Amino acid sequence: MYILQKRIEEEGKVLNDDVLRVDMFINHQIDVALLNELGKEYKRRFEGYEITKILTIESSGIAIACITAQYFSVPVVFAKKHESRNMDSSVYQSEVYSFTKEKFYNIRVSKEFILPSDKILIIDDFLANGRAILGLMDIIEQAGASLTGVGVVIEKGFQDGGKKLREAGVKLESLAIIDSMENGNLKFR
Amino acid sequence: MYILQKRIEEEGKVLNDDVLRVDMFINHQIDVALLNELGKEYKRRFEGYEITKILTIESSGIAIACITAQYFSVPVVFAKKHESRNMDSSVYQSEVYSFTKEKFYNIRVSKEFILPSDKILIIDDFLANGRAILGLMDIIEQAGASLTGVGVVIEKGFQDGGKKLREAGVKLESLAIIDSMENGNLKFR
Repeated sequence: MYILQKRIEEEGKVLNDDVLRVDMFINHQIDVALLNELGKEYKRRFEGYEITKILTIESSGIAIACITAQYFSVPVVFAKKHESRNMDSSVYQSEVYSFTKEKFYNIRVSKEFILPSDKILIIDDFLANGRAILGLMDIIEQAGASLTGVGVVIEKGFQDGGKKLREAGVKLESLAIIDSMENGNLKFR
Repeated sequence: MYILQKRIEEEGKVLNDDVLRVDMFINHQIDVALLNELGKEYKRRFEGYEITKILTIESSGIAIACITAQYFSVPVVFAKKHESRNMDSSVYQSEVYSFTKEKFYNIRVSKEFILPSDKILIIDDFLANGRAILGLMDIIEQAGASLTGVGVVIEKGFQDGGKKLREAGVKLESLAIIDSMENGNLKFR
């Protein structure tokens, strides 16, 4: 997607061969006008697919999920990463390994918010090794709901998450795929 | 605000005299259509005020901040509560006490995202004792920026955050103010 690729080229910061910072428009400061363009693009790519709910994960998926949900007229549910005293005790839970933080963490969704009748679109900002999205898919399966597809903003094509999902038959729509960031040079697919 | 009050009455869960759960439309599942109505209401209440940026705090403020930002055509910046390996080291930081979690935590905003020229609207889901919002105001002051006002979805009128902010001369707009939740009965102001 051209406008996204352009923004990544102009404002993204390649910290090393693995880490791309897009704090200036997605992950810390949020360009809501850009997110609206991404939301419209997801709508175009999932036209004709049945979607009743968008599922994402806190914190950085929430913004893109909510803006996108406006184009599908469905609610958003976000999986929680952090313990919350006020959360319902009846939850679906999945363990996810974070390569960034080098530890396991649990993601949780209250059982009342995913129903067996739900057709779910997963939305997230990044796809690298795919662990977070596989965790969300695990929760959808526990709930007996259906996965319609996965939309990510930036796929790191040099890690294996995208390959794993496509081989599993998932309809994966990545709005930008980066095949390499070696020596600070971004190569898009 | 009538439609918000009605949703709180119909779907909110009073867990005890202090804790109200609105997980079904704001804090875990998000009703984006409702949030759009809240965003329009903030636009109405801050009509004529100069606003260049919306500042909120992860995670539960992000959704309402982003939907609201569409009506002001400004970017959102969210303060981070959790350590992030990829974050810029040059940050404004403030210590906040959480009564819910009974501990202090730091909130951080990269210096590049709040400029002295910024006129800031703080948006958050809840206002209770006001510690999180005072932390955000501290960060705005450190940056030499201006606070235009504060918009919260639900103010717990029986805690002193709202009183403190109004006494400090802050333009505070709470879309619902709850004066008491004793014995599970919600009383709105």
